[in-house]
Amino acid sequence: MNLEGKQLIGADAVLATGRPIHAINPATGEQMEPAYPGGSNAEVERACELAWQAFDVYRETGLEQRAAFLESVADEIEAIGDDLIERAMAESGLPRARLEGERGRTCGQLRLFARVVRDGEWLDVRIDPALPERQPMPRVDLRQRHIGLGPVAVFGASNFPLAFSVAGGDTASALAAGCPVVIKAHSAHPGTSELVGRAVQRAVHKHELPEGVFSLLFGSGREVGQALVADPRIKAVGFTGSRAGGTALMKTAQNRPEPIPVYAEMSSINPVFLLPEALKARSAALGEAFIGSLTMGAGQFCTNPGLVIAIEGPELDAFVAAAGETVKGAAAQTMLTPGIFEAYESGVSGFSASDKATEVARGQRGEGPNQCQAGLFTAQAADFLADEALQAEIFGSTSLVVKCADLDEVKRVAEHLEGQLTATLQMDDADVDVARQLLPILERRAGRVMANGWPTGVEVCDAMVHGGPYPATSDSRTTSVGTAAIHRFLRPVCYQSLPQALLPEALRDGNPARVSRLVDGKREA
Amino acid sequence: MNLEGKQLIGADAVLATGRPIHAINPATGEQMEPAYPGGSNAEVERACELAWQAFDVYRETGLEQRAAFLESVADEIEAIGDDLIERAMAESGLPRARLEGERGRTCGQLRLFARVVRDGEWLDVRIDPALPERQPMPRVDLRQRHIGLGPVAVFGASNFPLAFSVAGGDTASALAAGCPVVIKAHSAHPGTSELVGRAVQRAVHKHELPEGVFSLLFGSGREVGQALVADPRIKAVGFTGSRAGGTALMKTAQNRPEPIPVYAEMSSINPVFLLPEALKARSAALGEAFIGSLTMGAGQFCTNPGLVIAIEGPELDAFVAAAGETVKGAAAQTMLTPGIFEAYESGVSGFSASDKATEVARGQRGEGPNQCQAGLFTAQAADFLADEALQAEIFGSTSLVVKCADLDEVKRVAEHLEGQLTATLQMDDADVDVARQLLPILERRAGRVMANGWPTGVEVCDAMVHGGPYPATSDSRTTSVGTAAIHRFLRPVCYQSLPQALLPEALRDGNPARVSRLVDGKREA
Repeated sequence: MNLEGKQLIGADAVLATGRPIHAINPATGEQMEPAYPGGSNAEVERACELAWQAFDVYRETGLEQRAAFLESVADEIEAIGDDLIERAMAESGLPRARLEGERGRTCGQLRLFARVVRDGEWLDVRIDPALPERQPMPRVDLRQRHIGLGPVAVFGASNFPLAFSVAGGDTASALAAGCPVVIKAHSAHPGTSELVGRAVQRAVHKHELPEGVFSLLFGSGREVGQALVADPRIKAVGFTGSRAGGTALMKTAQNRPEPIPVYAEMSSINPVFLLPEALKARSAALGEAFIGSLTMGAGQFCTNPGLVIAIEGPELDAFVAAAGETVKGAAAQTMLTPGIFEAYESGVSGFSASDKATEVARGQRGEGPNQCQAGLFTAQAADFLADEALQAEIFGSTSLVVKCADLDEVKRVAEHLEGQLTATLQMDDADVDVARQLLPILERRAGRVMANGWPTGVEVCDAMVHGGPYPATSDSRTTSVGTAAIHRFLRPVCYQSLPQALLPEALRDGNPARVSRLVDGKREA
Repeated sequence: MNLEGKQLIGADAVLATGRPIHAINPATGEQMEPAYPGGSNAEVERACELAWQAFDVYRETGLEQRAAFLESVADEIEAIGDDLIERAMAESGLPRARLEGERGRTCGQLRLFARVVRDGEWLDVRIDPALPERQPMPRVDLRQRHIGLGPVAVFGASNFPLAFSVAGGDTASALAAGCPVVIKAHSAHPGTSELVGRAVQRAVHKHELPEGVFSLLFGSGREVGQALVADPRIKAVGFTGSRAGGTALMKTAQNRPEPIPVYAEMSSINPVFLLPEALKARSAALGEAFIGSLTMGAGQFCTNPGLVIAIEGPELDAFVAAAGETVKGAAAQTMLTPGIFEAYESGVSGFSASDKATEVARGQRGEGPNQCQAGLFTAQAADFLADEALQAEIFGSTSLVVKCADLDEVKRVAEHLEGQLTATLQMDDADVDVARQLLPILERRAGRVMANGWPTGVEVCDAMVHGGPYPATSDSRTTSVGTAAIHRFLRPVCYQSLPQALLPEALRDGNPARVSRLVDGKREA
């Protein structure tokens, strides 16, 4: 594994001179080599200039060429081989199987976007031909397609060193949309980022694309990240991380002379509603399965179930008892970074110190640094509603069971929740009427509503919505996972009476690009 | 004509107690009756509460029911008859033919959105069926549709008292998307607003919809308007007006505890590029046609051509001479409001006083108040590039011809422009190579690029884009005119493993709503 600690700017690798970043192996606390000297305004400037120069050419690549490029990125990532997995394991503390799965997901989503690009539905072509004889006014020829917004700044996420980092979901959807990408690598996994970044560089070179299609910067979010979002050549932002980080980027983006969209995926506690009949039928099994979802990956998923809501009574007591027993047996797991571990400990301490939350059980204590000890607490609904601290996200394997007096209180709690990525109903057939009362509330509050599953596990497909009202995300109109994410980075352009020679291929007579088009109000496949 | 000067809140008509608004007939300067006492927080509160209560029911109306409601709004507007045209003429100074055409457009776009609603493509249904046998992990059942964002605040525009006011484009697209609407009427045409508002009220009643689907408020933008945008139950904003007004709303929306999208259509000077061969072939004809577009409706269109760009030389001189002659003969026209007239006069005075702009000609002086006297100026490209004042929009019939040394300077001017609604190429066949060099710049700068037409005149159809990069609008990802506008007010929701009984009709097995669906990656019509 040959890591150089350099910024990847277009086709170059450049040693910057800022404060060096070192990965820390969270399982051992050891600092890893090489150092990644942080970038400065000079590197941001150069990456944005190259991205801007690349934009007009890259956005007009043919569907086949762009799709093949995305597939090459996937091929190049796979070609890195086990070096990538080993470096990612060391930098993240995540186990091999998880990272192998995540690599599969990363390459799978690049190939899925290749299919989306080829298909061309994303162009949303609409043609209203001229009607020169129309009364009282003729209609001119009008044709619409979508083009990329421009260069996109993508921020790598700590909790998905592959699937939501350098060549992750935001990068794949932005590249699919025809937008050059400038990445700000997450400082927790610079080596993983360099390996993947060089894979993307090789794919850009192989397809003879302008070098500025991709650059990778290292450095602090407050300096390099903010400078990137403020750069006038950047036209959209993709971010997965904390609420504080996301809202800071939103502010910068909004205060630019030209404000730009920020797609920030931030905080979500992913409420699970245990409906009465389901609770009656299988309280213990639900309790055990719930803890399985809660402790998966040390709870470091955006969709981790941080909140359970149910009507109090012996069935809920049985659920809590079973969940508590399962928590007690839950092994400690290494968290991603010392900072995340500290924030987790601080969040759990807050629950422990609160006279409104009652500790049910804690998981196994770990040995060594940064070990996540699971936790389960309960609170009365009235206390939960009155105390904002109980409603905040604790990133990690701790959850709160909110006990409600009756269905009306369940609904009040549901209405009181902030925007969420997911909402889950545990229900039996006889719960349908209750579920029907909750559903409109949950649709308004969450991007994904599910029955009898657990929110962890996000399928990459056409129908997925990984999004939701603020503060789950900064923009509920989109998703960050799944093929619909391509629409985030597009805008419509209408061409009026342009000669055929000037029209983009997808809009020309005869449909040479063979894409779906809405012609005079009728869909032509 | 029975006007009461009341706020229309749900099914009620309420006399408010704030500072009264009177329409002013701009042709005479006379104050019109009745007074419209401005609303207060109490009216905003009540309208938003009713809208919020209506939302869950209204967003689940069937496609047919919602479409029929939109058609009834159109029918009810037509049923007002000539009273509407007469009041709108008196309040706006616009001529009868224009307002009759605008009424046709208003009702036409309501009926067009009814077609869009029935068709159901806007739901963007995606279904990924469960794959229980898939290795290494089964896939759960995932289904996506779109739902309304929530109640929408719409601000009536001064320059389209019908087509972009109470039941205009923003209202039609929001209602089509399943969002209740609370209007802040433009203070220039309260009587027109009341007439149309009562028509919408009647349609809501006829279709037995929850009364909160529609409310109409009168009052100042700074008070009622800002309070409306700040209300937590409002989830999106539609606005057409000044840059100062639009950016103020953007700021309020962004500073809410839950930020919301603002679709503000603001300022655009709509550059027209005269390419060399076209200029050579028909400079005089172009000059005359240009002034026709410039002076239409006293230049009070968002797409008014406020800027002409060309390479200097005898052909351009001939264009300017012909345009100047035509301007001299242009009759004065009544502007919409005293405020708009004052702003126009001030903008033209700025050009007159500038030592960088040269006056070519002025149009006829009007008699009576608020008369727009057309104007034509020229400037050198270098001066234009250096002077922000020359780049600002003058709302009305004044335009600036920018003289460039060569094609490179034309491109520099194009790259320098802010975001625009439109960009126009006047070109002949032999100009195609030049046009091809400009096109990528114009696509990045404008929502609509046209050849050999004039930007005024915006067709309401599937392919239209009336939008563009900031500051033409606050959000280049959408359009405010045409059927694609429905997407502004929608967000995706994914349903995972929900029982059929709980699924919305459009997502159920067998496709009972008969809408286009993407099933397992394949389009089912």
